[in-house]
Amino acid sequence: MQVRKFLPAVALAAVLLPTMGLAQEAEAVPGFDEIGPYIMTTLLFCMAGFLVFFMAAGFAMLEGGLVRSKNVTMQMTKNIALFSIAAIMYWLMGFNLMYPADWTIANWVGPFFSQTVLDPVGIAAADANLGYASIGSDFFFQLVFVAATASIVSGALAERIKLWPFLAFVVLLTGVMYPISGSWQWGGGWLSQAGFSDFAGSTIVHSVGGWAALAGALILGPRLGKYGKDGRVNPIPGSNLALATLGTFILWLGWFGFNGGSQLAMGTVGDISDVSRIFANTNMAAAAGSLAAMILTQVMFGKVDLTMVLNGALAGLVSITAEPLAPTLFGALWIGAVGGVIVVFAVPFLDKLKIDDVVGAIPVHLFAGIWGTIAVVFYNEGASLMTQLTGIAAYGVFTFVGSAVIWYVLKMTVGIRVSEEDEMKGLDMSELGMEAYPEFSKG
Amino acid sequence: MQVRKFLPAVALAAVLLPTMGLAQEAEAVPGFDEIGPYIMTTLLFCMAGFLVFFMAAGFAMLEGGLVRSKNVTMQMTKNIALFSIAAIMYWLMGFNLMYPADWTIANWVGPFFSQTVLDPVGIAAADANLGYASIGSDFFFQLVFVAATASIVSGALAERIKLWPFLAFVVLLTGVMYPISGSWQWGGGWLSQAGFSDFAGSTIVHSVGGWAALAGALILGPRLGKYGKDGRVNPIPGSNLALATLGTFILWLGWFGFNGGSQLAMGTVGDISDVSRIFANTNMAAAAGSLAAMILTQVMFGKVDLTMVLNGALAGLVSITAEPLAPTLFGALWIGAVGGVIVVFAVPFLDKLKIDDVVGAIPVHLFAGIWGTIAVVFYNEGASLMTQLTGIAAYGVFTFVGSAVIWYVLKMTVGIRVSEEDEMKGLDMSELGMEAYPEFSKG
Amino acid sequence: MQVRKFLPAVALAAVLLPTMGLAQEAEAVPGFDEIGPYIMTTLLFCMAGFLVFFMAAGFAMLEGGLVRSKNVTMQMTKNIALFSIAAIMYWLMGFNLMYPADWTIANWVGPFFSQTVLDPVGIAAADANLGYASIGSDFFFQLVFVAATASIVSGALAERIKLWPFLAFVVLLTGVMYPISGSWQWGGGWLSQAGFSDFAGSTIVHSVGGWAALAGALILGPRLGKYGKDGRVNPIPGSNLALATLGTFILWLGWFGFNGGSQLAMGTVGDISDVSRIFANTNMAAAAGSLAAMILTQVMFGKVDLTMVLNGALAGLVSITAEPLAPTLFGALWIGAVGGVIVVFAVPFLDKLKIDDVVGAIPVHLFAGIWGTIAVVFYNEGASLMTQLTGIAAYGVFTFVGSAVIWYVLKMTVGIRVSEEDEMKGLDMSELGMEAYPEFSKG
Repeated sequence: MQVRKFLPAVALAAVLLPTMGLAQEAEAVPGFDEIGPYIMTTLLFCMAGFLVFFMAAGFAMLEGGLVRSKNVTMQMTKNIALFSIAAIMYWLMGFNLMYPADWTIANWVGPFFSQTVLDPVGIAAADANLGYASIGSDFFFQLVFVAATASIVSGALAERIKLWPFLAFVVLLTGVMYPISGSWQWGGGWLSQAGFSDFAGSTIVHSVGGWAALAGALILGPRLGKYGKDGRVNPIPGSNLALATLGTFILWLGWFGFNGGSQLAMGTVGDISDVSRIFANTNMAAAAGSLAAMILTQVMFGKVDLTMVLNGALAGLVSITAEPLAPTLFGALWIGAVGGVIVVFAVPFLDKLKIDDVVGAIPVHLFAGIWGTIAVVFYNEGASLMTQLTGIAAYGVFTFVGSAVIWYVLKMTVGIRVSEEDEMKGLDMSELGMEAYPEFSKG
Repeated sequence: MQVRKFLPAVALAAVLLPTMGLAQEAEAVPGFDEIGPYIMTTLLFCMAGFLVFFMAAGFAMLEGGLVRSKNVTMQMTKNIALFSIAAIMYWLMGFNLMYPADWTIANWVGPFFSQTVLDPVGIAAADANLGYASIGSDFFFQLVFVAATASIVSGALAERIKLWPFLAFVVLLTGVMYPISGSWQWGGGWLSQAGFSDFAGSTIVHSVGGWAALAGALILGPRLGKYGKDGRVNPIPGSNLALATLGTFILWLGWFGFNGGSQLAMGTVGDISDVSRIFANTNMAAAAGSLAAMILTQVMFGKVDLTMVLNGALAGLVSITAEPLAPTLFGALWIGAVGGVIVVFAVPFLDKLKIDDVVGAIPVHLFAGIWGTIAVVFYNEGASLMTQLTGIAAYGVFTFVGSAVIWYVLKMTVGIRVSEEDEMKGLDMSELGMEAYPEFSKG
Repeated sequence: MQVRKFLPAVALAAVLLPTMGLAQEAEAVPGFDEIGPYIMTTLLFCMAGFLVFFMAAGFAMLEGGLVRSKNVTMQMTKNIALFSIAAIMYWLMGFNLMYPADWTIANWVGPFFSQTVLDPVGIAAADANLGYASIGSDFFFQLVFVAATASIVSGALAERIKLWPFLAFVVLLTGVMYPISGSWQWGGGWLSQAGFSDFAGSTIVHSVGGWAALAGALILGPRLGKYGKDGRVNPIPGSNLALATLGTFILWLGWFGFNGGSQLAMGTVGDISDVSRIFANTNMAAAAGSLAAMILTQVMFGKVDLTMVLNGALAGLVSITAEPLAPTLFGALWIGAVGGVIVVFAVPFLDKLKIDDVVGAIPVHLFAGIWGTIAVVFYNEGASLMTQLTGIAAYGVFTFVGSAVIWYVLKMTVGIRVSEEDEMKGLDMSELGMEAYPEFSKG
């Protein structure tokens, strides 16, 4: 429609009469009882999709706030680049690979070389998939999920990894690895058939990102100076906690789309009510994770630690993601609170192992993701602990081994780590020649 | 739904046929004429709810930008903590206390000890409250309002209050005080019965936050060095006006949910049109408040004052909140503009009284809140000035006295103010041991 | 509705019975088949409107991040002020001027002096424009577009233009120039009748902003020190690339509303599916523009340039804006990628001409806007290259000449440029007396 004008009242009749005319031939034009659910679910994917899209900004701000100022330009570059790569790779192969029309491994050969094709413009109701939603909305919603997975990796490996090898990893993660393992469950594959349950991706998205990050952190090694020769852990404070807090709030906002949109339907009383249940539970888990980390750091260290509180909120969110619908609000509270507790113990635990995770991505996304996947059994009667553990293990083995192979090959060929000198100088100047805050002198 | 796949065209018939079958037994499955309003209103609460949720980030950025850099970590901590506490307290007692099924004071005893229970998963249309919305959506929407109230207090008392006593106050404000006084009007209580009118909470949310802040500011006292012995007022500039501006824009965005969602219905032509009226009016009031403050500071001081412009926009928003529906756009303009004018006069007025309000929360939320509540009478024929003043006074007395008692008890027991030395050093290092911008040397 | 309470189950019957009663007199109360499209489209405008509103924050952050820290307070002030002015001018005359009920130039006399009037409160279905949407939603959606145009100008002319003359220009741009030229196409005027095609405003919004910026940049002249006497271009780095990245992500988010809302309908299967197509294409074009700029800067300069990547994403978005619906995803990819390439070549090209565009607004909004308008012909069969070029030229001549006259008159009367001394000192201290980051010492 090119003319964007509102019609004056006098023109009203001309608009209404044909509409009413159509209403009388109800067989020809389907009414809202038939098209309403399709419209609402497509809207859900659009809305939830833009919320999850915005999580890209959230990850960028969180990570940009938690690295030193000499690596902020790089962190921004990685975050916008990884989102862009995810968008293209997921169109090129990921979406069809993840959702083959009929799930058998043989059916994957085609999708490896196929590209996503949207519904035709102005699709007629008779041609649309009225039982679900438009392809465009579904594609957009699934696409923003895969980008979240890649963001997780970016945070953990910050401050020492080279730009292009990192992006090469993102190509394979978003185009191949995530879609293949995702299809096991969300594409109707073997785990789905086995009864595995992961509503919005505690395992499929978050722990997958966490495993990829863990493999990378092990092969890449810690930042210079992080672990002293005497076994001391040297804290490296983030350069901008206001930014990190903003990032956390943006992620929390985006999570309403992440979990709420995963209801995958909004056109019935039951579905929209469930979406709202999910909103309430998601919010509760984040609140509980944040408070749990706050209280625990006060008790353990005598001081509240803001970075733990932020990660506690995120861990609460990851924890509830595997089952944000079934729990009561109290259930969401304690599941999220356990997530917050996990973070407070896991961050020093990783340091003890000399695994350097710059932003705490592994505790938040991997450990709390595992916890959330297990916690499904407490409120979802259809879930079994064994199947949940099977799923966790399957994703863990596949992603960790696959990622390790990729990281190792990259390391042996192009190299993944900047030189010591460049790392000291900061990646912004050494790799990109551009400071994020050129005017603020460093203390 | 665990399998997130779109159905290929060949599977369409299988989806459509049962749907069509159901459509024929219309008595059994209610059609969109019956369920549409419920679906739309539930969606309104979810959407408006996530917008209002994001105001938590807006308050955090606004406050983080207006305090000195040595207190930014603390301000971030307080903001994420107060939201988390509000979420939990409102579930634990606030929501049921505020909306007793049948409003008599006797009916409050139960809610004091009750917790919010959501609709069952996948609720059937026959069991749902089709005349309104799902409990989850309603609860979520109301919850994010109470957090806004607490945020107001956090800004005014910044840079000198201790963390835990502040949070103790938040527990009582969000769990007890706000729900009780809120129920007078929104729970169908005595003020509602008396004809008081406050559409989205100029009084019930904003001035309540303002009164609590005022009581706190009086008992806490001003920051060191703010008021010289010779009566001079020493301006203490905010550390990051980009952040403060971002916060203001986020709050402005969230206000579309705050006021628009308060229509409490979106499933009829009249209701959705009213929501859009509210959007237009809300936007106009903010624009007018901002411009009024800009012009006035230019005229009075010879220079535009950005912090006044930001607060002017917010005051415009608070002013229109009591009645964003009835006014014409011109009405919204002048009501909002008066809000902006109030801020420009009220900020120095408070300084004259040596009431130290770090971010201007009292002018914006209390004074403009009172103004907005009075302004209802200009466009809403059902409102009477006397009843509006009665409501304003009732909320003022209850909240100011209640808050003063709590602040005083906290002061006498655990103490609410950090030591002079800690205040000079900044709360970030003294209370939390973590700087927000550790690398930027201070000029 | 003043009582915000959910009804207990026992009250359900009282709610349902009348509803059911009404359903039986279907002639009296129109059902969802008649009102559903109106409700959905009004909702689309509200949703898309708040997303586009938030672009104001995106522009502010982008610009605030790309100027030097001594001009950040000014950039914040300009951005909130221009949005406020746009909101008021568009109500005062712009909206009716742009959408005269019946498009002939004679019909413009009235709108010059008319103000927008919203639908009455609680409008009945019989009185509403059921073929479209509520006036409030339409007005709000169109209003946020005009503000975007003004934001473009603000970025290009940063760091040397005086506040009030800039705002005077905004008054004329948003109240008169944009609405008049906008009506040629979106008001049903001569370009619309000639078959020009610009879905969401590559030309009507973005290149108009770009032309106004170009005229201003030429008349205002470059910043001191930008172009050396020896012909050297001195790069002036932005002060906060984290902020600039945040701004880019916010703009990207807002663009889903910008393009998606321009479908102007959401209440049929075809329309909502088209909205989702637009989301997918818009996202793809941004991703492609960003990656194209990244790869190209690596190849050309040996280093990725983050500011080019950010502007590449924005150029991709501008490029797809003229036709976000018709292209395939691959079409969106290459159209967006060309946008990113344009930016990388256009930024140094403008420098060669000594046209100083602080944030790259002219490459992004004008050059990519022209490209996007031409690219319509590749996927929209109804578009002709000649008509597209006619439209581009018409908007260019009108806006460039009109803007140049205004800038020139302002220059000759009140002056548009600060003194050299003030420019060196920075506009924050010289014009506003308030630093954005008073505590961060400058390196």
